[in-house]
This record gives sequence, structure tokens and C-alpha cells, in this order.
Amino acid sequence: MADIMTRVARSASARESAVADPGGFDRWFAQCATRTHTTVERVPLDALDRWRRDPVTGDLRHDSGRYFTVHGLRVHHPEGPVPRWDQPIIDQPETGILGILVKEFDGVLHCLMQAKAEPGNSDGLQVSPTVQATRSNYTRVHQGGSVPYLDYFRNAAAQRVIVDVRQSEQGAWFYRKRNRNMVVETTDEVTVLDGFRWMTLGQVLALLGRDDVVNMDARTVLSCLPFPAGGAPALHRTADVLSWLTEARSLTDVRTERVPLNALEGWHDADGRVCHESGRFFDVIGVDVVAGGREVGRWSQPMIEPRGTGVIAVLLREFDGVPHVLLHAGAEPGYADVVELGPTVQCDPASYEVLPATARPRYLDEVLSAGKERIRFEALLSEEGGRFHHARNRYLVVDSDVPADPGHPDYRWLAVRQLTALLRHSHYLNVQARSLVACLHSVLS
Amino acid sequence: MADIMTRVARSASARESAVADPGGFDRWFAQCATRTHTTVERVPLDALDRWRRDPVTGDLRHDSGRYFTVHGLRVHHPEGPVPRWDQPIIDQPETGILGILVKEFDGVLHCLMQAKAEPGNSDGLQVSPTVQATRSNYTRVHQGGSVPYLDYFRNAAAQRVIVDVRQSEQGAWFYRKRNRNMVVETTDEVTVLDGFRWMTLGQVLALLGRDDVVNMDARTVLSCLPFPAGGAPALHRTADVLSWLTEARSLTDVRTERVPLNALEGWHDADGRVCHESGRFFDVIGVDVVAGGREVGRWSQPMIEPRGTGVIAVLLREFDGVPHVLLHAGAEPGYADVVELGPTVQCDPASYEVLPATARPRYLDEVLSAGKERIRFEALLSEEGGRFHHARNRYLVVDSDVPADPGHPDYRWLAVRQLTALLRHSHYLNVQARSLVACLHSVLS
Repeated sequence: MADIMTRVARSASARESAVADPGGFDRWFAQCATRTHTTVERVPLDALDRWRRDPVTGDLRHDSGRYFTVHGLRVHHPEGPVPRWDQPIIDQPETGILGILVKEFDGVLHCLMQAKAEPGNSDGLQVSPTVQATRSNYTRVHQGGSVPYLDYFRNAAAQRVIVDVRQSEQGAWFYRKRNRNMVVETTDEVTVLDGFRWMTLGQVLALLGRDDVVNMDARTVLSCLPFPAGGAPALHRTADVLSWLTEARSLTDVRTERVPLNALEGWHDADGRVCHESGRFFDVIGVDVVAGGREVGRWSQPMIEPRGTGVIAVLLREFDGVPHVLLHAGAEPGYADVVELGPTVQCDPASYEVLPATARPRYLDEVLSAGKERIRFEALLSEEGGRFHHARNRYLVVDSDVPADPGHPDYRWLAVRQLTALLRHSHYLNVQARSLVACLHSVLS
Repeated sequence: MADIMTRVARSASARESAVADPGGFDRWFAQCATRTHTTVERVPLDALDRWRRDPVTGDLRHDSGRYFTVHGLRVHHPEGPVPRWDQPIIDQPETGILGILVKEFDGVLHCLMQAKAEPGNSDGLQVSPTVQATRSNYTRVHQGGSVPYLDYFRNAAAQRVIVDVRQSEQGAWFYRKRNRNMVVETTDEVTVLDGFRWMTLGQVLALLGRDDVVNMDARTVLSCLPFPAGGAPALHRTADVLSWLTEARSLTDVRTERVPLNALEGWHDADGRVCHESGRFFDVIGVDVVAGGREVGRWSQPMIEPRGTGVIAVLLREFDGVPHVLLHAGAEPGYADVVELGPTVQCDPASYEVLPATARPRYLDEVLSAGKERIRFEALLSEEGGRFHHARNRYLVVDSDVPADPGHPDYRWLAVRQLTALLRHSHYLNVQARSLVACLHSVLS
């Protein structure tokens, strides 16, 4: 473990690569873009090819029964600021693979990254993991070749596994969705296909600061890497951190029940979408996609389109020279295990205009009013472009002087290295916090 | 952490205590028994006081809506030896506390253990944790006094938390039941109430070898203690162990759906019970309980009564001087996260008379035929006496020469210290494996 931590650190600090072509990332990325053409057209949900609304429930389902469904969820959270609400949610029970293949060149680990288009992306291509595969992709034994490099992850035990952990995705939009986050090291000769590129970890981390370049799937996989630990003790013993989370999971009372999509209180069909009567939160929309690249594909699908741009921020402070971030233990209806640790702030500020004042997130104003000198990281980053349409959030890391005891039981300062240890296991850090962990490493490496 | 591991090891090797009364455990336990009188009488399910069968579904529910319900579950496990079955299951969604209070006397940690009667116990009292409390017990702020010592666990942050982790219980009989396993150290003066006794860890572990003395709740809490690690490397890197389990969870396809208790295929009502037409597996029975001790209680409840005595065994082998056990990654319908690690063998041998031959557990015959010289631990131990009636299993630790690669992907040798590390987190080891971890420590300490 010490060995791999050292190698991760070395790659994270390498901003030059001995193997990438000399033209650099920008030229490669621009070239990939010229070979890719994705058009996305909004269509009414009722007009989606091969998707059907259930005549009784209104739930959205593919004719094949595969992919995912959109149904309704009624959420009871008696002690929360909003004790009960209804919402649509995406149900996609299968576990897919998000995998980055790594290999050492000249003593430095390189990640095989992909320039990939997704229908929900605002601006075409994003830097993505080597593989994003659904369960159907990777259990179809005889068609493994259809997703390049998939066999490295399907037969991971034949390589050196660095990361392999199921992590949750957006608990507000997905019902118990988990993906398998993998990093696998090979010593094989690897042919680099069009649209793929070896990059040092430092090169990928540096791109995180550019708007909309590194996709969510890459961010979550990168966050699970064993970045090096060390230094003075953390503010809280790990036993106390685990106890804090165990208590939150034991005491938080969130119950959900599935309800028909057409019976959701406060939601209605309008202009071929499902939207909230307040005009806030998100819409369920339909899109027709034509994707042209190596292969041409054409399909239709529902997507979630948020109405606003969210703010996802973590406060950063050193205690005894050790960087800590202020995390929030909170519930989301789609979590598999009640509560996960999220960023200090995770919200769409505009939503609070229609929610009770008590729902306004703590520290939101501190983040929004932070001067430039306190902002250590800032970028507009997208959520998963396969299910979410133009879902962009402003990700921030902000220096803070919030005291060691923040004075609220749902918030606690954790050392960044404690997050690394927790990320070996499922369901501790939510996907937004994981994105910020990747951003933190770009700041701290 | 090193400090607490050392102190756990010291207590585990202490078979004498400086504080316990000189008459010893047996006299104390016998005295407790004379002050406790529990009578349990079987009654038909339809005659249970304050319990009611739903007129439509036949589900069993308490009039108050509290405690638990018994409903039906249909299980789809297309790749398993039995691809589909129906069964009753207990649904008890709240997380309770199983807590052991510890305190140092003369430099040795002692556990405050309780002699506690439960209606399902075969033989009256068992040695139990300091506290077994339901969520209703511990959230009722103004009645905390009703469960002795509960405040040490409700306000754990004021003490030193050694263990605090939610762990699953029987996934074959409970639907997603989790209890909070806690060990909390105090330096307070503690008044020892009637029915409680300070014991070293070594004294408690030694009792595990006696039939039916240490209850399941005590065993699971003890298993989560940070026993010391060290020695040569384990056979498999922990990253590979985690990857193995992640893969099993990602690929295993087990789906469950709730069905009415009166609509279960193969199950019927007979003599006031719900039982399987084969006469195997288990019955759902009703009991009237009169418990006399410090307080007299009287209540009725349904219980699960297994038809046979199970075999729960783990194979033990040293690799490079490091003790390893052969674990099985398997699915049970009530697990919260698809697959957990269980013992090498966990079954009721009699059940296999009515199941396909392919369902017969690997290594069962090796365990049943093991000579005395290979049996390192053997005892008849009970499962939770609050829900299961006379549910006893023969727990075994058996020396083995199964090779490093057992030749089946669902089985793997793990170092005992790897289990200790996994037990800081939820849902890795099932409750039977945790019982065996406690038994292993009694053998290895």
C-alpha cells in the first residue's frame, strides 16, 4: 500500500509526460472533437422512440425493459425542513463499471483517458475514464470487444487492482444507483485507440480547473485513488468519525415509497416534460440523440434537466498543519444507506426561494461571499451526461476559519487523508464530495 | 489505535479478574438464574394478544404498529441452485443498540456483561451485552433510565468510543435488519446492578466454548473489537479482497419482492403456525411470555422457530505463520447490500434433503467428518432469543489443509486480522461469521 501511495503521489505531481504526443492535450482534444458529432434534440416524452409511459402509472420505461425507468418517489423525512415531498426519480438498479486503466511509463503511472461525448454534456466532449460500461456490457461474455479495454476490468484479477469499490451516485435523482469505481494497472503492451490518451495523474488533475472538461465519472474514480497519508493526527480519531456517521444513520428517519409518476403532488406534465409547479428543481425531458464518431448511433431517452446551476463547495482549513475539510452528514432519498458525507454546501440556491427559510443551507452565504483570495479552486463541472442534461454545478474549495467545533452536529472537519481511507469502502462519501476530493488533490498535490 | 489493540489483547489473555467477586462466574450466574423466571408458552398465531393478521394479506403486525412485522418475500436468484423461492421474513427496519460498556481495573479492560433471559433461549439466561435497546428505547429522551446504562451509549461522544458500527443480522430471516454494535469505555464510577458483572475479555471469550452461555448479541459486539494485527503478509492483499467482494456484489443477481404472507408458495397455516409443506426450514410460531425478574413483564409475539440444528463452521489454516479462515461470499435475501462474507459452511444439513443436490454446501462433508484432533472449537450456540425460538447452531472452527487457492470463486482464505479491519465497517461479515470471529479469538488469544 505504501508503494502504491508513493507512485500515485509521483504521478500526481508530474505535469509532463514522456509518452504523450508533443502537441499536447489541447491539440489532441480538438482533433477528437472534429471527429465527433453529437446532436441532441428535445422531444416530448410521449414521442420518445422505444420508450413508453405506463398507461396506468405514467412511469417511463424502455420497450426492452432494460436501461432504466423513471418513476415517482414519496419521501418522508419527519425531522427535516421539508417533512414530506414527492419527486420523479431514476431507477437503474444495475451496477456498471467506471474504470481507469493505468500503466507505468518511465517510472510514472499514466491514466488512459478517453475523450467522450455524452448527450447531456453542454459542450461536446469531456475527458472520461477508459471504460464506462453498463452491467449488460460486461456480462455479455462474447461481446466484450464492443467496449474497448473492458476486458482489463472484467478480468481485473489478472492485473493489479488499485481501486475497486461500489460508490453511490446522485441520491436526489437516482434510486440506489451504484457504480463500480475501478483503477487497474497493467504491464501489457496497450494499443492506444483513437480518442484515448495516456496522461499523468497530474495532467488530469490540472484539467479539473477548466470548466466542463473532466467528466463526473472520471472525477469519482480519481477520488478513490490511494493518495498518500501522513503528518500530524487528524482533529477527530477515525473511530469517532465512524461513530458519528453510525449515529446519524441510526437516528435519521427517512422513508421512501414508490408512487406512480403521474400521481406526484406538485408535479405535472407540460410541453412534453414532467416539471414542478414552482418551476424549480428539475424537469424530466425527452431527447433524440444522434451520435457520430467511430460508430454512428441513434437513440432516444428521457433525461433529468435541472432548472438552476448548483453550488457544491467545501470549506478547507489546516489544523496542526494537516488539511481538513468541513463535511456534512446528510440524507438523500436515493441513498442505499440513509446518510452519506457530502460537501459543506451542496444545493441549487434558486430552489430555496420556494422552500422554508430553515431549509437554507448553512455556510452557503459564507461560500457565495468568499473573496477571490480565499477561493482555492473554482470550476463549472457537469454531472453525468448520460442521464442529466446540462446539469452543471459550480465546484469550489474555499479557505475558511470555521472553528474546530463548527457547533452543529451534522458538520465535522475531517482530514483529507481520512477521506482517502473511507473511499476504499462504499457509501461513505457522496458523488459530489468525491468530485471535490479530486479537486482537492489538484490543489494539494 | 495501537494503544487500544494492546489493551484489547491484554484483556483477552486475562482469565482472572481483580474486581469480580471471588465466587466466580458460575455462582453469580446461578444466583441470577434463581432470581429470573421466564415462562414461554406456544399459542396459535391467531390468538396472540395485541398482534393481528392482516385480513387481506395475512401479514402479522402489532396493534401499535411498532416492534416488527412478519410478511412474505419472493426471492429471485436466477443463477442460484434454487432460482426462485418464497418465504416468510421479519421486517424490523429500526436500528437498535447492542452495547458493551468497558472500564479499566488494575490496568485491564473489563466488560460489563449482563445475565439476560430471552423468550427464545433454550435454557434461560445467557451472557449478554450491557445494553440491548431498540431505537424506541434510546430515542425516548425522558425515559432513558428504563434501560440501565443506556446513557453511556446514547451519549457515546462523552466517553471513549472503541466500536460503533451497524452490522447486519440473519439475512435469511430478517429483511435488512441492522443493529448498532458498540463498545464504549468509561472512567466513571459505575454502580453494578443486580444481574450485571465485570469480566475480562478473556473470561467472556472462555465462556464461548460452553453450550448456550454467550448470546448472539454479545458475540457480534465482541467480534468488532480491534484485536491486534501484525505478522507476515496475508495471502491476499486487502485491495484484492475488496475487489473480490465488489465483483460479487456487482454480478450477483438477487431480487426480492414483498408478497402477502398468506400467498407464499409452499407455505401454509397449520396448528396456529405458518410452516413449509416439506416440514423443513422454519416455522413462524406464536408465544405468550411471562418474564419475572427485577420487573415482571407479560407479552405475546411471533417468533421464527427453525426445524433443525444448523452447522456453522469455518476452516482454519496458517499461511506463513498467519492464521487464515476460508470465507464464503454469498447472498441472502435480507442483506442490505447483496452479498456478505459468511463462514465456510452455514446451513441446516436436514434442509438439503428437499433441495437439489447442487445446493449441498461445499465443505459441509469435510466439516462433518473432521476428527477430534482437527476441531479447534465446538459449541452449540443460540441465535437472537428475542426473535428466534430455540434456534441453535453447532459452531465449529476446524483445522484444514484446503490449498491457498480453494478452486472456487466464491471462497477465499482471509487472514483473521483482515476480518478485524473489515469489521470497522458495515456489511462485510455476516452475523454467523462474526460469531465465529469471536470464537476464533477465544482460540487464538
